[in-house]
Amino acid sequence: MTRLRKTVPIVPDNEIFSFCVEGAMLGKNPKVVSCGFISIEKPTFHRQYSKKQMASIQDISVSAAINLLSAFLFLVAFAMLRLQPFNDRVYFPKWYLKGIRSSPTHSGAFVNKFVNLDFRTYIRIFNWMPEALKMPELELIDHAGLDSAVYIRIYLLGLKIFIPITILSFVVLVPVNCTDGKLEKSKDLMFSDIDKLSISNVTPGSQRFWAHLVMFYVFTFWICYALYKEYQIIASLRLRFLASEHRRPDQFTVLVRNVPPDPDESVSEHVEHFFCVNHPDHYLTHQVVYNANKLAKLVAEMKSLQNHFNYYQNKYDRNPAKRPTTRTGLWGLWGDKVDAIEFYATKIEELVKEEAIEREKVISNPQAIMPAAFVSLRTRWGAAVCAQTQQSCDPTIWLTEWAPEPRDVYWTNLAIPYVELSIRRLIMAVSLFFLTFFFMIPIAFVQSLANIEGIEKVLPFLKTLIEKKVVKSVIQGFLPGIALKIFLILLPTILMTMSKIEGFTSLSSLEWRSAGKYHLFILVNVFFGSIITGAAFEQLNAFINESATEIPKTVGVSIPMKATFFITYIMVDGWAGIAGEILRLVPLIMFHLKNAFLVKTEQDREEAMDAGSIGFASSEPRIQLYFLLGFVYAAVTPFLLPFIVIFFGLSYMVFRHQIINVYDQKYESAAAFWPDVHRRLIIGMIISQLLVMGLLSTKGAKYATQLLIILPVLTIWFHLFCKGRFESAFKKFPLQEAMVKDTLERATEPNFNLRNYLEDAYVHPVFKGGDFERPAAIDEEENNPLVPTKRALSRRSTPGESRYDSEPGSEAGS
Amino acid sequence: MTRLRKTVPIVPDNEIFSFCVEGAMLGKNPKVVSCGFISIEKPTFHRQYSKKQMASIQDISVSAAINLLSAFLFLVAFAMLRLQPFNDRVYFPKWYLKGIRSSPTHSGAFVNKFVNLDFRTYIRIFNWMPEALKMPELELIDHAGLDSAVYIRIYLLGLKIFIPITILSFVVLVPVNCTDGKLEKSKDLMFSDIDKLSISNVTPGSQRFWAHLVMFYVFTFWICYALYKEYQIIASLRLRFLASEHRRPDQFTVLVRNVPPDPDESVSEHVEHFFCVNHPDHYLTHQVVYNANKLAKLVAEMKSLQNHFNYYQNKYDRNPAKRPTTRTGLWGLWGDKVDAIEFYATKIEELVKEEAIEREKVISNPQAIMPAAFVSLRTRWGAAVCAQTQQSCDPTIWLTEWAPEPRDVYWTNLAIPYVELSIRRLIMAVSLFFLTFFFMIPIAFVQSLANIEGIEKVLPFLKTLIEKKVVKSVIQGFLPGIALKIFLILLPTILMTMSKIEGFTSLSSLEWRSAGKYHLFILVNVFFGSIITGAAFEQLNAFINESATEIPKTVGVSIPMKATFFITYIMVDGWAGIAGEILRLVPLIMFHLKNAFLVKTEQDREEAMDAGSIGFASSEPRIQLYFLLGFVYAAVTPFLLPFIVIFFGLSYMVFRHQIINVYDQKYESAAAFWPDVHRRLIIGMIISQLLVMGLLSTKGAKYATQLLIILPVLTIWFHLFCKGRFESAFKKFPLQEAMVKDTLERATEPNFNLRNYLEDAYVHPVFKGGDFERPAAIDEEENNPLVPTKRALSRRSTPGESRYDSEPGSEAGS
Repeated sequence: MTRLRKTVPIVPDNEIFSFCVEGAMLGKNPKVVSCGFISIEKPTFHRQYSKKQMASIQDISVSAAINLLSAFLFLVAFAMLRLQPFNDRVYFPKWYLKGIRSSPTHSGAFVNKFVNLDFRTYIRIFNWMPEALKMPELELIDHAGLDSAVYIRIYLLGLKIFIPITILSFVVLVPVNCTDGKLEKSKDLMFSDIDKLSISNVTPGSQRFWAHLVMFYVFTFWICYALYKEYQIIASLRLRFLASEHRRPDQFTVLVRNVPPDPDESVSEHVEHFFCVNHPDHYLTHQVVYNANKLAKLVAEMKSLQNHFNYYQNKYDRNPAKRPTTRTGLWGLWGDKVDAIEFYATKIEELVKEEAIEREKVISNPQAIMPAAFVSLRTRWGAAVCAQTQQSCDPTIWLTEWAPEPRDVYWTNLAIPYVELSIRRLIMAVSLFFLTFFFMIPIAFVQSLANIEGIEKVLPFLKTLIEKKVVKSVIQGFLPGIALKIFLILLPTILMTMSKIEGFTSLSSLEWRSAGKYHLFILVNVFFGSIITGAAFEQLNAFINESATEIPKTVGVSIPMKATFFITYIMVDGWAGIAGEILRLVPLIMFHLKNAFLVKTEQDREEAMDAGSIGFASSEPRIQLYFLLGFVYAAVTPFLLPFIVIFFGLSYMVFRHQIINVYDQKYESAAAFWPDVHRRLIIGMIISQLLVMGLLSTKGAKYATQLLIILPVLTIWFHLFCKGRFESAFKKFPLQEAMVKDTLERATEPNFNLRNYLEDAYVHPVFKGGDFERPAAIDEEENNPLVPTKRALSRRSTPGESRYDSEPGSEAGS
Repeated sequence: MTRLRKTVPIVPDNEIFSFCVEGAMLGKNPKVVSCGFISIEKPTFHRQYSKKQMASIQDISVSAAINLLSAFLFLVAFAMLRLQPFNDRVYFPKWYLKGIRSSPTHSGAFVNKFVNLDFRTYIRIFNWMPEALKMPELELIDHAGLDSAVYIRIYLLGLKIFIPITILSFVVLVPVNCTDGKLEKSKDLMFSDIDKLSISNVTPGSQRFWAHLVMFYVFTFWICYALYKEYQIIASLRLRFLASEHRRPDQFTVLVRNVPPDPDESVSEHVEHFFCVNHPDHYLTHQVVYNANKLAKLVAEMKSLQNHFNYYQNKYDRNPAKRPTTRTGLWGLWGDKVDAIEFYATKIEELVKEEAIEREKVISNPQAIMPAAFVSLRTRWGAAVCAQTQQSCDPTIWLTEWAPEPRDVYWTNLAIPYVELSIRRLIMAVSLFFLTFFFMIPIAFVQSLANIEGIEKVLPFLKTLIEKKVVKSVIQGFLPGIALKIFLILLPTILMTMSKIEGFTSLSSLEWRSAGKYHLFILVNVFFGSIITGAAFEQLNAFINESATEIPKTVGVSIPMKATFFITYIMVDGWAGIAGEILRLVPLIMFHLKNAFLVKTEQDREEAMDAGSIGFASSEPRIQLYFLLGFVYAAVTPFLLPFIVIFFGLSYMVFRHQIINVYDQKYESAAAFWPDVHRRLIIGMIISQLLVMGLLSTKGAKYATQLLIILPVLTIWFHLFCKGRFESAFKKFPLQEAMVKDTLERATEPNFNLRNYLEDAYVHPVFKGGDFERPAAIDEEENNPLVPTKRALSRRSTPGESRYDSEPGSEAGS
């Protein structure tokens, strides 16, 4: 709390709205979320900037010092906590999941199990930093997968782009800006030291703007060059990664959707006949998709009951004198008091029966088979062909695409017919528009209801409590924002749900799609929302009523004034947020709670670990914002750049540590998200070009518009060029590659039984879990050590087994 | 001349500019071009409309009568001329090319050879109309190909869309409009009868606009329904056509471009090895591409010399007393006088030698082999796979696509590397922008030079002639427009050249691409240019400085006032233009000139025929304009609709006649252009929706904007839906189809030698022509009657042979 209260004063009131939006967006760091919130002012529309926005370098330094300090404190806390053995599973879960590290409880003195008493280790508490940077990239790819390795390359790209730009703009632009002294001449205006270094200090109409123009060109070319090189590197990394991979079921498998109904044949027969006819030399086998959604729900319910049972069992074991009791009603709060252990034991028994019936129903009932199937082919070549070609005259049936990895499949969406899919996408597109631009309307409405009088009316018994002065002021300060806060915390979930409704079939595509939506939201509500203060729909209205040339001017002219705000923002969200990320406060607490109440066996403890993952859907769009800020301010207020460089440097280190020690990705897409990242960077570049164009043209540099209009055209062309050059490496699988791998494999393992290998790869996870009864047909699977996906699929349910297949090679592959 | 002079008075002065643009765009009807031009006023910017624009129904009737009469006269002239045997090859060339009809000179009395004296035939001069409509569609497809049959379906679609809309709007909207009588109330404004029937007659803010709103919704849904049905029909026609086709080389062949250079292997070896490795079961043979551009030029030169030679030979034959002479310089105008026959005989001899050397060089020199090849596969399935998949990791090499038909290949563009292609497209995109918006600037500059004083200065000897009063006034009236006129006549050629520079590899894609460019040009310079009078760059400037909501209003508000102009335009360009199309004045004259001077043998006479083709690149964008006019005016000025309906009806009949009797398409794409047509129709719909939205919101119908904004969203969604549903039928070749055809063929012709069949299918045309020496390697080809492409390729050089393969089945296929 202290930290933010100190930084807030330099943020003017009417910016608090967007500041809150952002504060809440930290997502992973709830501490910052809760304190980032003070109040919501009725947003007033732009161009009322006054002197108080112009913070001096002292103010910024103080704020920087505080934020650096808090970031440093987080880091120290992390460095201490990670050394304690009882936190080992919070800070090194990846090694446990890989089976390389086992619980420290097995050895040493009792105290040593929980607290690290070896003081020599405390001397080198920041050792994790060089440690994190030490692992070479290829080993990192082996260890953590290409997705993670490429993800942290985004931060590295940020460093590559912004370090030269920072140096260049400090060498060239800062002297140009600060020697003009327009602000000193106009005595009536207060100005800050930062503004002296920025473009605001240059007299309108001055020839000095040529420097900014030329530098902006240089920056753009440098960014394009860096992006091109990066795309090239990542494409080659991806190709090398795919080439080095071991056998994986998805290399041989295509997902077939919209299998047309046939009056005479079952789905399974129909699929088999179709592919036998149309891919006679390559068809091998297929796996139909069961509608096991209800069964999956039962399985989840079972898990929750088991947890309750364990909790009470543990309680009883520790204190055998007293049988624990519970109530039968909701959340154990209402209803009759019963013996808890017996109650849950009966419930579990009931559910086991219900589950068995449902399982039987799914397997035997032809209605439960969805018109989709995973078709496996004899060769990678055959699968590449099948995935890339159109099968039927009617392009809405027999749709083939690469099968996602088995653990990446989003099972619920496999059977949506074409027309419905198309309508769903329309509805979601319209919803996204309204969500982005009009989300403030329902929230303002809820806010107007949620006042003290309203609470007193609904819950009169709280009246006496509320009327107390301290409580009242807290509620009054807190209430107005609560609806917005809840909305913002829920936002990633809402966006993910929207993506799910759109009908994507893999977790990876759901994440990428949500990232796209979140990017739009941040762009509109955080970036433009902070520059032109006001609710998004007001901006929209203003933009519609302004001309195409006016919009960049309107936005551009307020950019220099917002520099201090964004610097503060980078420190709060970026620096402290990232330091909070490494502390993992929530998983830390959750793990210890679970450990205390639920854990009985070693396996339970493994389950209690929450390794988490990168969270591409919410973290990537936030990086994009920093890139955008860097692009925009590079030529305007160079003083902002070092803050961004520090952000990228710190993030790179922290995330490198996290992907080495913590995160456990749910899937491996071999960096297939890069074209999205690249496209959004290009969008950022174009926005920055238009805004700088607008800004310069209001500064009396008339030639600016004509000279800068070339840049967006070139940037769009550059994007198309890169797209043509590299994108297909991320979307298609070249036949040459496939053929090489097929030939190699035929030569090295001529007798390999592919059919056995593939038969059960694409079985719904509820039929696979280790501790559940399985249909007889797929019973052999568990005994077959060749299924590399087992570890991933059964990670949460049977992590104990994961040690069996932990050779580094197969790790990277699976 | 008479015709247009009568219609001009009702077109106000400041509209003449765009009227001229359009007049000149008739292209195929140079008569209308030349008279459509009167003068160029300095374009004044919009909203200066005065009463004189409001033409009364009488004016329109007079104009309609004149245009109808001229159209009728054209039709009568056509009906007379077509009956004359000596015009037979002008009006029925298709039958000659198909070999079904032979020259009338073979039989009958001498006079009958030239003039039709059978007066009974004159009684039924309009028999061609029902005749044209009689042929059933399937037969038409057999006879003229699917491209032509689908092309005239665009006109039919126009009728299907606009007949119900016309009826509905006359029943509903005309009564609503004409009973309001706003115009009668305001006495100070003059108004016309047409305006009484249009939306202008409704008092602003009236509840009557609900009728327009609802009707506009009804129209939109009806158009969407019609478009959907049409897309469906055409997709099924296409699939049926492709399924019924006989064996064609392009079914088995893919075009491979950007073959990477290899230090150890020639292109041919490299291609063979690559495909042997990566498509081992399917690779059959391949044909490298020679850079024969220079040779092709020599061949063309040869042809021209041969023509000259023939001309003088004929002259000498007719008048043996006098040896014809010519001059050696440019165009036979300067230089020494020599004996013409001898001169050309020597020149031909020289060229034959040069050609032989060049031919030798092309075949033997490895530098003449381009890094591209036509790769043929054993099965259609193999080709479908190869065309639809990515071959190499690097997506810029080994690019495969469906091979165009042999006669459709644009040979010059086969070897452009990826980076160059990408740069060319950028440059052409920028050029197109400048061409569209700024073409008036250089033309205005040339116009300022081309005045009488300028001519007198450059060519002083003409002074006395020019100073004559009559000549002077003609020149003064004519000169200012000449630069624009030349530009507009050249425009389709310019656009085609731009498409060629963009590097497309088939004639069909060149045409479609040019059509897209021309569509943009018409949209900007004719449609918007007529509504908002002014040069395009002035409009652009105005639009950039107006807000997104203002633009539709600005344009929309002037729409009703332009109704009479567009009605006149439809009559001049549409009705008379189409009637002129059927008359074929230019080919008629050219044929008789050639016949008189160049023709010696029957073969020469076949060559003198100019069957022409539909000219998709320039005619389709013009149809789009009529659709757009119909969409826009349906709810605004229903009075315009009947004119459009008549245009579509007349065009349908005329073009049906033409494709049956005249046009000879250069290629057959099986209606692959339909997605383009559909997309442009959707663009038209969206433009009309925005404009009607703008118009209604200025009329005080505030709810209109909110209610109409749904339509563009739905229309875009409808487009995406159709795209997903049908487009792949036009872009991809389903494997199921390929497999069915392969299996069928294997069963019916198990011993067919496909290698022989395919070996020479893709040989550069200069190596194929009947009367030129061919390299030994491909000598057998001419003796192989199974090459169905021969007719097409050698059409111009050896049309006599075309009769051999004239069974209807193979016609449609080849």
